[in-house]
Amino acid sequence: MATQFAHRIAALKASEIREILKVTQRPEVISFAGGLPAPECFPVEEMRVVSEHVLSERGRQALQYSTSEGDPELRQAIATRMRTKMGTRFSADDLLITSGSQQGLDLSGKLFLDEGDVVLCESPTYLGAINALQVYRPRFVEVPTDNDGMLIGELDTRLGAEPHAKLIYAIPDFQNPTGRTWSLERRRAFVEVAARHRVAVIEDNPYGELRFEGEPLPPLAALDHAGVVVHLGTFSKVLCPGLRIGWLAAPRAWLEKYVIVKQSADLHTSTLSQMEIAAYMRLFDLDANVARIRDVYRRRRDAMLRAIEREFPAGVRCTRPQGGLFLWVELPEALDANDVLERCLEREVAFVPGGGFFPNGGHENTLRLNFSNMPELRIAEGIRRIGEALREMIATTRGRVSARREALAAG
Amino acid sequence: MATQFAHRIAALKASEIREILKVTQRPEVISFAGGLPAPECFPVEEMRVVSEHVLSERGRQALQYSTSEGDPELRQAIATRMRTKMGTRFSADDLLITSGSQQGLDLSGKLFLDEGDVVLCESPTYLGAINALQVYRPRFVEVPTDNDGMLIGELDTRLGAEPHAKLIYAIPDFQNPTGRTWSLERRRAFVEVAARHRVAVIEDNPYGELRFEGEPLPPLAALDHAGVVVHLGTFSKVLCPGLRIGWLAAPRAWLEKYVIVKQSADLHTSTLSQMEIAAYMRLFDLDANVARIRDVYRRRRDAMLRAIEREFPAGVRCTRPQGGLFLWVELPEALDANDVLERCLEREVAFVPGGGFFPNGGHENTLRLNFSNMPELRIAEGIRRIGEALREMIATTRGRVSARREALAAG
Repeated sequence: MATQFAHRIAALKASEIREILKVTQRPEVISFAGGLPAPECFPVEEMRVVSEHVLSERGRQALQYSTSEGDPELRQAIATRMRTKMGTRFSADDLLITSGSQQGLDLSGKLFLDEGDVVLCESPTYLGAINALQVYRPRFVEVPTDNDGMLIGELDTRLGAEPHAKLIYAIPDFQNPTGRTWSLERRRAFVEVAARHRVAVIEDNPYGELRFEGEPLPPLAALDHAGVVVHLGTFSKVLCPGLRIGWLAAPRAWLEKYVIVKQSADLHTSTLSQMEIAAYMRLFDLDANVARIRDVYRRRRDAMLRAIEREFPAGVRCTRPQGGLFLWVELPEALDANDVLERCLEREVAFVPGGGFFPNGGHENTLRLNFSNMPELRIAEGIRRIGEALREMIATTRGRVSARREALAAG
Repeated sequence: MATQFAHRIAALKASEIREILKVTQRPEVISFAGGLPAPECFPVEEMRVVSEHVLSERGRQALQYSTSEGDPELRQAIATRMRTKMGTRFSADDLLITSGSQQGLDLSGKLFLDEGDVVLCESPTYLGAINALQVYRPRFVEVPTDNDGMLIGELDTRLGAEPHAKLIYAIPDFQNPTGRTWSLERRRAFVEVAARHRVAVIEDNPYGELRFEGEPLPPLAALDHAGVVVHLGTFSKVLCPGLRIGWLAAPRAWLEKYVIVKQSADLHTSTLSQMEIAAYMRLFDLDANVARIRDVYRRRRDAMLRAIEREFPAGVRCTRPQGGLFLWVELPEALDANDVLERCLEREVAFVPGGGFFPNGGHENTLRLNFSNMPELRIAEGIRRIGEALREMIATTRGRVSARREALAAG
């Protein structure tokens, strides 16, 4: 008898994105595939200063075990920043430091999901969340979504029809993969419906601060008076992802359970990294860093939108995100983004086909483009190549369609 | 309807150790409770050098996302060190970097365990492993263990009787909590039995290098020719725990699945911390660091054993570990270590009652003492206070027992 894996393993597959990223590691490839922040925006010098500071001032403490909840100074700094920027009411005691916000997703699945429970999510949604939650064997119910966010009537109907609804997963700001942002009305109505059905909400907010235009909107957590929203935050997009420092803010009774689950998962997150980020927030200006990142990404988004306007054939539609790292493309129905990717890789340009972002499959005519990690000239060139591939393929498809019509007419 | 947690949460409780640790944070308390390494042995200066080195040489890379498998240089350095020190045959490609070896336990539970599967373990075993695996709702079967390790006949019988046996969890070197080390014969026989039953083995080896006397013995992974052993390693005890860098070495087909599970849990472990430890291994002498730690802990173990000999009343037995951080105490059956702890906390000295280390309960007359984190004079003083409490309690118990006998005789 061979050793058997748990049943949950059968459903798991390696993230397509990471597989594509392996292909695109050659520097000559223009990649819109990953979700990598621009490394030229990382505050490397400042991180040297804070690292030196922490190790010289409190080296032994920084290298020792620490509490599962996380560094008190860092939790306080985050709670204060969230209150100021977003209007949330979480205190430091409502926060758990996680190993990136990806871990917040894993811990949420662990805390809430039994096999067969229902997770409702935007359609499409973040691939990494599907992978993290999939481990706990839920059923995903996709809620139709437009440019203003989840359709609340559709959400309400589905919640009513699903007695095993346990979680709603949402990314209201500059969503991955679409780049869409929910309107204020939609946020208010959403929180009301979630509270009425007493379903826990996981609000994933890695991109909220990266707004290029328009007014910031309050996160779901700030509108939640029923205590149903868990808010996931991260330093990955506003500072750097390599330290793997995120956090989770939750109603107190839930947070206590999250801490136990965190403890069983990895005891606690790196003491040194937490103290470094706390020192960064004390000694440097995170807002100024975010402003620099915003400027760079805004210019890159503009470059991408201009190139798309110029290069993509008619019948291809895309979102126009007000912030974040991604935009979303819908091809004519007859085209499969996996075939397009194949043609594009021959031209040394990459993206992620959109099908993987729909937990129940379909939508193979969609794709995600990342604009944060390539300079403007390469963005223009990459979009030109994709446009070329698309025009070729549309022509071939039209050719096939008319040949078939002629054959039918002749036969 | 209130929101419900997953069923798995009911079985979880906060680690008793961490609860006791909160009580013992006052510096005047002599604590034998935690499993903390001695912070005065941390190479703080060297870590400053490597941190500065990594951030100045490859700062952007160190702060960026990286692969789920882990830093190639670090994996190579670990594989080489394992081969040299332990005689294993793992190559860098057989290794996954984890967020401490605690994460290796969580990932193992996730990969192998369905609800109701059986985990066999030493009796007693590491509390953190019980907590990590408990999440996946297995049944624990404790295998009787003597000073030479698991009793192989008992293991064989239980494996034969348990068709749902999925994992054997073992700590063959300087076990937590007992400090015991398996003999070479026992290791060989164990691997043969595990292979015959095709049950996966999780070998947890955080303490193996901390040997104070005698010859090092090969880990189970080095004796495994059937490809059933997963080896968990960590830098927590030989360098410092605050960076949360551990690893997992596994047969290739299993490793591929572990990587997918790791990716869904937290994408990857801190890029910066991995590069720092790789740089430490390149620029400094990890062996010399381990030798320093060994010297300090050996003296502390000796101080504790001498004090126990002097201070503990007859009828109290303890192990004599050849390495590691812990020793194990068995009290007379009538005493409950939780009551003893209460008396000891009044005297400002702490330890961990042993009951929690038995997944199926019982054995309340046992306790674990940690000797790595207190200087020798405080060890002597702490043991003196515990001895005093024990003598008092034994006298009271004897008093109660003779009073009861008299009452019975009179009645």
